[in-house]
Amino acid sequence: MALFIKNGEIVTADSRYVADIWCENETITTIGKNLPIPNHAEVIDATGKLVFPGFVDPHTHIYLHAMGTYAKDTYETGTIAALCGGTTTLIDFVNPGREEGSLEALEKWRQQTQNPCHDYTCHMTVSHFSDQVESELREVVKQGITSFKIFFAYKDILGMNDGDIYKTLSLAKSLGVVTTAHCENAHIIDIRQQQLVANKQLATKYHHESRPPILEAEGTHRLCVMSELIGGEVYVVHLSCEEALQKVLAAKMRGANIHAETLIQYLLLDKSHAELPNFEGAKYIMSPPLRDKKNQKILWNALQQGFLATVATDHAPFDWKQRQMGRDNFCNIPNGIPSLEDRVRLLYTHGVQAGNIDIHRFVDVASTRAAKIFGLFPQKGTIQVGSDADLVVYDPNCRQTISAKTHHMNIDYSVFEGYEVSGVCSTVTVRGNIQVRDGEFVGKKGIGKFLKRQQRIC
Amino acid sequence: MALFIKNGEIVTADSRYVADIWCENETITTIGKNLPIPNHAEVIDATGKLVFPGFVDPHTHIYLHAMGTYAKDTYETGTIAALCGGTTTLIDFVNPGREEGSLEALEKWRQQTQNPCHDYTCHMTVSHFSDQVESELREVVKQGITSFKIFFAYKDILGMNDGDIYKTLSLAKSLGVVTTAHCENAHIIDIRQQQLVANKQLATKYHHESRPPILEAEGTHRLCVMSELIGGEVYVVHLSCEEALQKVLAAKMRGANIHAETLIQYLLLDKSHAELPNFEGAKYIMSPPLRDKKNQKILWNALQQGFLATVATDHAPFDWKQRQMGRDNFCNIPNGIPSLEDRVRLLYTHGVQAGNIDIHRFVDVASTRAAKIFGLFPQKGTIQVGSDADLVVYDPNCRQTISAKTHHMNIDYSVFEGYEVSGVCSTVTVRGNIQVRDGEFVGKKGIGKFLKRQQRIC
Amino acid sequence: MALFIKNGEIVTADSRYVADIWCENETITTIGKNLPIPNHAEVIDATGKLVFPGFVDPHTHIYLHAMGTYAKDTYETGTIAALCGGTTTLIDFVNPGREEGSLEALEKWRQQTQNPCHDYTCHMTVSHFSDQVESELREVVKQGITSFKIFFAYKDILGMNDGDIYKTLSLAKSLGVVTTAHCENAHIIDIRQQQLVANKQLATKYHHESRPPILEAEGTHRLCVMSELIGGEVYVVHLSCEEALQKVLAAKMRGANIHAETLIQYLLLDKSHAELPNFEGAKYIMSPPLRDKKNQKILWNALQQGFLATVATDHAPFDWKQRQMGRDNFCNIPNGIPSLEDRVRLLYTHGVQAGNIDIHRFVDVASTRAAKIFGLFPQKGTIQVGSDADLVVYDPNCRQTISAKTHHMNIDYSVFEGYEVSGVCSTVTVRGNIQVRDGEFVGKKGIGKFLKRQQRIC
Amino acid sequence: MALFIKNGEIVTADSRYVADIWCENETITTIGKNLPIPNHAEVIDATGKLVFPGFVDPHTHIYLHAMGTYAKDTYETGTIAALCGGTTTLIDFVNPGREEGSLEALEKWRQQTQNPCHDYTCHMTVSHFSDQVESELREVVKQGITSFKIFFAYKDILGMNDGDIYKTLSLAKSLGVVTTAHCENAHIIDIRQQQLVANKQLATKYHHESRPPILEAEGTHRLCVMSELIGGEVYVVHLSCEEALQKVLAAKMRGANIHAETLIQYLLLDKSHAELPNFEGAKYIMSPPLRDKKNQKILWNALQQGFLATVATDHAPFDWKQRQMGRDNFCNIPNGIPSLEDRVRLLYTHGVQAGNIDIHRFVDVASTRAAKIFGLFPQKGTIQVGSDADLVVYDPNCRQTISAKTHHMNIDYSVFEGYEVSGVCSTVTVRGNIQVRDGEFVGKKGIGKFLKRQQRIC
Repeated sequence: MALFIKNGEIVTADSRYVADIWCENETITTIGKNLPIPNHAEVIDATGKLVFPGFVDPHTHIYLHAMGTYAKDTYETGTIAALCGGTTTLIDFVNPGREEGSLEALEKWRQQTQNPCHDYTCHMTVSHFSDQVESELREVVKQGITSFKIFFAYKDILGMNDGDIYKTLSLAKSLGVVTTAHCENAHIIDIRQQQLVANKQLATKYHHESRPPILEAEGTHRLCVMSELIGGEVYVVHLSCEEALQKVLAAKMRGANIHAETLIQYLLLDKSHAELPNFEGAKYIMSPPLRDKKNQKILWNALQQGFLATVATDHAPFDWKQRQMGRDNFCNIPNGIPSLEDRVRLLYTHGVQAGNIDIHRFVDVASTRAAKIFGLFPQKGTIQVGSDADLVVYDPNCRQTISAKTHHMNIDYSVFEGYEVSGVCSTVTVRGNIQVRDGEFVGKKGIGKFLKRQQRIC
Repeated sequence: MALFIKNGEIVTADSRYVADIWCENETITTIGKNLPIPNHAEVIDATGKLVFPGFVDPHTHIYLHAMGTYAKDTYETGTIAALCGGTTTLIDFVNPGREEGSLEALEKWRQQTQNPCHDYTCHMTVSHFSDQVESELREVVKQGITSFKIFFAYKDILGMNDGDIYKTLSLAKSLGVVTTAHCENAHIIDIRQQQLVANKQLATKYHHESRPPILEAEGTHRLCVMSELIGGEVYVVHLSCEEALQKVLAAKMRGANIHAETLIQYLLLDKSHAELPNFEGAKYIMSPPLRDKKNQKILWNALQQGFLATVATDHAPFDWKQRQMGRDNFCNIPNGIPSLEDRVRLLYTHGVQAGNIDIHRFVDVASTRAAKIFGLFPQKGTIQVGSDADLVVYDPNCRQTISAKTHHMNIDYSVFEGYEVSGVCSTVTVRGNIQVRDGEFVGKKGIGKFLKRQQRIC
Repeated sequence: MALFIKNGEIVTADSRYVADIWCENETITTIGKNLPIPNHAEVIDATGKLVFPGFVDPHTHIYLHAMGTYAKDTYETGTIAALCGGTTTLIDFVNPGREEGSLEALEKWRQQTQNPCHDYTCHMTVSHFSDQVESELREVVKQGITSFKIFFAYKDILGMNDGDIYKTLSLAKSLGVVTTAHCENAHIIDIRQQQLVANKQLATKYHHESRPPILEAEGTHRLCVMSELIGGEVYVVHLSCEEALQKVLAAKMRGANIHAETLIQYLLLDKSHAELPNFEGAKYIMSPPLRDKKNQKILWNALQQGFLATVATDHAPFDWKQRQMGRDNFCNIPNGIPSLEDRVRLLYTHGVQAGNIDIHRFVDVASTRAAKIFGLFPQKGTIQVGSDADLVVYDPNCRQTISAKTHHMNIDYSVFEGYEVSGVCSTVTVRGNIQVRDGEFVGKKGIGKFLKRQQRIC
Repeated sequence: MALFIKNGEIVTADSRYVADIWCENETITTIGKNLPIPNHAEVIDATGKLVFPGFVDPHTHIYLHAMGTYAKDTYETGTIAALCGGTTTLIDFVNPGREEGSLEALEKWRQQTQNPCHDYTCHMTVSHFSDQVESELREVVKQGITSFKIFFAYKDILGMNDGDIYKTLSLAKSLGVVTTAHCENAHIIDIRQQQLVANKQLATKYHHESRPPILEAEGTHRLCVMSELIGGEVYVVHLSCEEALQKVLAAKMRGANIHAETLIQYLLLDKSHAELPNFEGAKYIMSPPLRDKKNQKILWNALQQGFLATVATDHAPFDWKQRQMGRDNFCNIPNGIPSLEDRVRLLYTHGVQAGNIDIHRFVDVASTRAAKIFGLFPQKGTIQVGSDADLVVYDPNCRQTISAKTHHMNIDYSVFEGYEVSGVCSTVTVRGNIQVRDGEFVGKKGIGKFLKRQQRIC
């Protein structure tokens, strides 16, 4: 099927111009002024609208297993929600437990990826290291999963000690694989939690107290040090605060090959939300925690300056009932603030429209950069001849109001309830297939494919 | 005339793909796979070659008047040399003296721009400030010159005190104009020169001693401070050393709207060159001076990390005879190291091929970023539908040797004599006109136009 | 006359012990346990009390001429007030105007020093530079004035450009003289004041706006740079904020020979005081301005860590009527917050008692360090055999309330009105003469001497 | 017995003057000019000489058990050597193994302290943490051992994970005890050693490669973070490089209560020594390793600026035969460079005489500061009435040559062989007993006492 997007204003990380886009065989074949319209093509009139490359969310947990329960989205509900919000590619996680093999966990994950409505891939978590693990990881990379995840946090579940992290980073370097890292000091957080619990400090507001900014900065610094020693490429997930940013910037100045991701939540919410009474704060529990509001301006500036590479969601949709598990003790609240569907429009509204970042940085941090770092570029992340026809026709003049009543994520609340956003995804395509019209899913379920990745390009 | 560039590998600051480019009416009209070749088109087969946007040199002094003499290039010789090296746009300077009006100096400059072979524009130097100057600057901006230049250096000729600089930056802010700045502390350099002269320390090696890195950093810091207070956009020209870079980076972290340029000379040469005996060091005198070699790695890293925005030349071609003016006293050597023709190929060779920067950063720092900062984008600086057809078909597999015998700059030596470079500009076009073939000028003289600029886009 | 101070707890910058002190011929001759009491001695029982070395205020303007008026204290009233508060040595300023010679100004200053009740010296301001000035400064140093003062601020009155400052610092280096500096950027403050006045922003709260922290930091950085280039010893007066402190610390790390002074006002007051209505804010106008409260904790820490060397007052007592000069325009308010009498007790109370600094740092920053930097040690600033018998017997268990009604400064208000302090100076001696008993002056007027200083010891 | 030191130039961390010192009952009783000489006193004429407080070495391992062997000094040989070099107090370590109780190890250590010739105390190493350990540590503190030692290094022997370190620091805080720390990242060093061994990189020069500066900085940073969170006082032992110093300084700026010690070896030796051929480099193996020479200037400056608190030795005398254990593998070389006897004179010569530090900083870093931090002040570390009469009469005009042939340490080589030093300890007293005359031990063995310490004063 051919697709013809007429007269839109194409915006990429580096370009901005009005032209027609012609797509065939799932990819973009021609871009030009006043192209002839092929007879058989589906024509989308994008006059007066923006045309973005499909957005990439490099950090989601669609069906996360944590604390004995599962996050609420499936690949079907998750990808539909993503599409309605303009995201056409996501990178999920395979999280083998300590007793589990990487390949076994990967197989289990593959079975969960039912009915995906756009393309996707995953990072492979390394939670223990041995010759056996190393051998399996080599196989994992061969299967096209070219990014690892490590944890400085969660010491008894996923965290590794510095020796095993160093080994993992060394292996990643030799395999040409980027390593993503959750940089909070597990041991100290653990003791602090114990101390808080012992002091009966159990309310949601103590979550921040248990994992202050300085502990995120500490783990970030440790990762930088290892990256510099090994020369490996690393990626800090969910950077939340100035303290950690300073570590990343100092390492970049010393020559480290390091990228950092922030989340849409840190840009718009702050720690006072997690202090809301009546357990309402529980909706705002994630790790690292929402921080003091002063960090927001610093993070926006870092995005504009290019110090931060990407904006993701860490989408982990636990519903209100699941949140209750921690009513008596914040330590037991399943973490994560659902926002997969909202990221792009919030970022456009509060970033571009509010003057915090320019429109090219917007495309870069929400799409292009993640595609480049994780080896999906130029198949994904840009609008150029030969790329997959994953396109978002965006009408910036429409306004919508976010609400749990209307969103497509399988979750019974929204922390952005009532937020107005500028822009609706009037058309969203996946490899030339029209999946969304006027913000609603109208496409085919199950067309999403696992993206087998090669070596990264940065 | 139509131009058809077939099957090249298009590389921009953010894209990389193989496609055909069709240009009509001076601009790019269509980009696609296997486009039909129009009958009337001139066809360039770019198979196996790279196609870059024409490169932009944001800092040249084609016919600089300094120390009672004039730099040797004319607009004709300078633009031909530039084109042979892949540069298709340059930004020169209008430097009114203390007694001269901005408009008068502009008119004089316009008369010098004879027979330009590619497009160009200029920055307007502000060397004194008054109501009259302000009024003229408003007119200058209306005429499409939307960038100013100020000097912390050269106190008795071009430098202004902090008060007048502050006023100039305030005016620039109100006019939406970016201000470029030469950031060395004039007063202290002046005293240090006097002390050196008094001590009979007159050889070329004392040039560095007279203007150490810390004085460049000092001026850079002062500019950052003013930029932060005013909220204006500023651009540090010819940043040469780590000390100044640290100031820029700290200001960026605090939210300053600041860009910094380095020069190809600082990336490849070092202060030991200025210490060569037999007055040979005189060829290597520029300001800020060539620095200690350890800075090179730091500058390359800063380019890759995005801390530095552009690579320029500060091209000011004074020949060997003119250099003799300073044989008895380094203070009298006309400053500047000619390199307008060499910049792009040296940067490709020592940057991309040597692994110091990736190919997208190469395009960005040598073309796109300057176009964006100085309001030439997207007319210049990228390959997209609607842009000027300023294109460089680059054959990276050819090797050339730089020599004064073969270069096109009007200068009787080359500091890069004997340097091998990878790549030849096999075709260079200016708005669809083929001006260079196989590294030699074959085009029409005088087709270059003054670029009237609007508000900047960053 | 012999003085015998019995059984006090002697506290110096580095010692703490109970012993007797025996003084003869103006100096301390013996310190020991259970010394025999000489027959002819005046005996002070210091049991249960602290014995400190006399405190040194390195920054006062007893009879400052500014804005066409004179500060209200004379050498008689000023030194009596100082003594009642424990200060036994002060360092004043000689401020020659632009048209005035250094020696002429020094002579004029000597005539003002009538009836001093304790010892004193002065810094020599350098407000212009020439061969004549240099020659006079050499004579000034010979006369025992071994510290200069320069201004980055006050451009049309006292400020010099960077060239003349550089020359002054070079001269100071060659003479072994320390240079003190007021580090605010004069030119920019001047323009900002003009802009504020033009905008009718004339209230006291705009004083801070006219001279923000970043401009103090800028001047401080410029001083550091010059000090590093020359290798000279410098002393930043009245450092008020974190921004400037960071510059000092970075310079220290690079090896600069730099000291910094803060004021008791910056430790206890903040910029909200200068915003008080009904022109009350006018009492709180000084330069640099009182800063945001968050700086106080940072300054206290810097004192304890040793990053800041001294705590002074910049005592310049303009009374309420004189303040009225600026009722319609903050620019015309004579600057300075009187506190000569209050410094020591406020610092003891809010520093030592509140746990912000330890008692040895207290003695160091309020006495010893200034004596060392300015060449008065060990004559002043410590309790050791051979030192001048300038001693303060301090009863920390008494509490007093500061009030304009009871203080001895010739000023009709106190910004510390109603502040409670811990401690009264129960005995204060000057070279063995008892000048204060129970916080009141009981001594001889006119016994204070000009201190002729030698090379500094640091 | 009474001791009378006549007419010496007394120099403390803060004072300098000529006077007589009279000592009785082990302490200083009177200091004064021309004191009457008691009949029964032993009189030392110190005319023309300096009189320092006895020096304190806060970091020694007299009889260290490591790698299955014991360091060669005993309390008798070690304290004699110390005294001959001017050190009159040392702080050793009790290092319980993982299976051993603190009290049991302390008892064992007490039995080793035979025939001490000056006073001493110890730090208690915490190498594992449990309720039992906590309970024993409380008892240890009661017995007067008020400083702990923790290891980020040596993971399988003495190192603890961050959780146990955090618990130890919390306990220390609650007990008012300072915690000293060896800050190198054990896990990463371990892997790097394994990698080096696997690559047959076994020579002494690879020792530095296994533990680069950045890993010392990493551990130092982690300690700073914990100290800030807990508010506890910490002390970094043997800081060797700029990278770690930067972490300490940043933490001080943020308000951390942190001290750092460097070693005389880092000030005078560098990593090229550990690269000497024929296994000669083995004499220079210690951890952290000797660093690049450029660090020396930085460390001297940090001492003068007060950023570093103390200079110690980490004295661990393994002889040439013991060093052979690592002939085939640098990992097996017992660590430590003997220098207990040499520290003071080397520091005086290369510090004070060479102009790197002033004489007051010399006394402070080699004596006073350690006494203050570790709760020995004012009994030790200064010359004041009431202090122990531990005095060093130092003749700075004598020159000596260091040699293994003449030194008193029980070690068959000296890394300072042939170094000339300025100054000989002409008299050294311990609580009034003359133990050394003209650099040779002449005193009584076994008079040294264990120093039971109280809460620290800083």
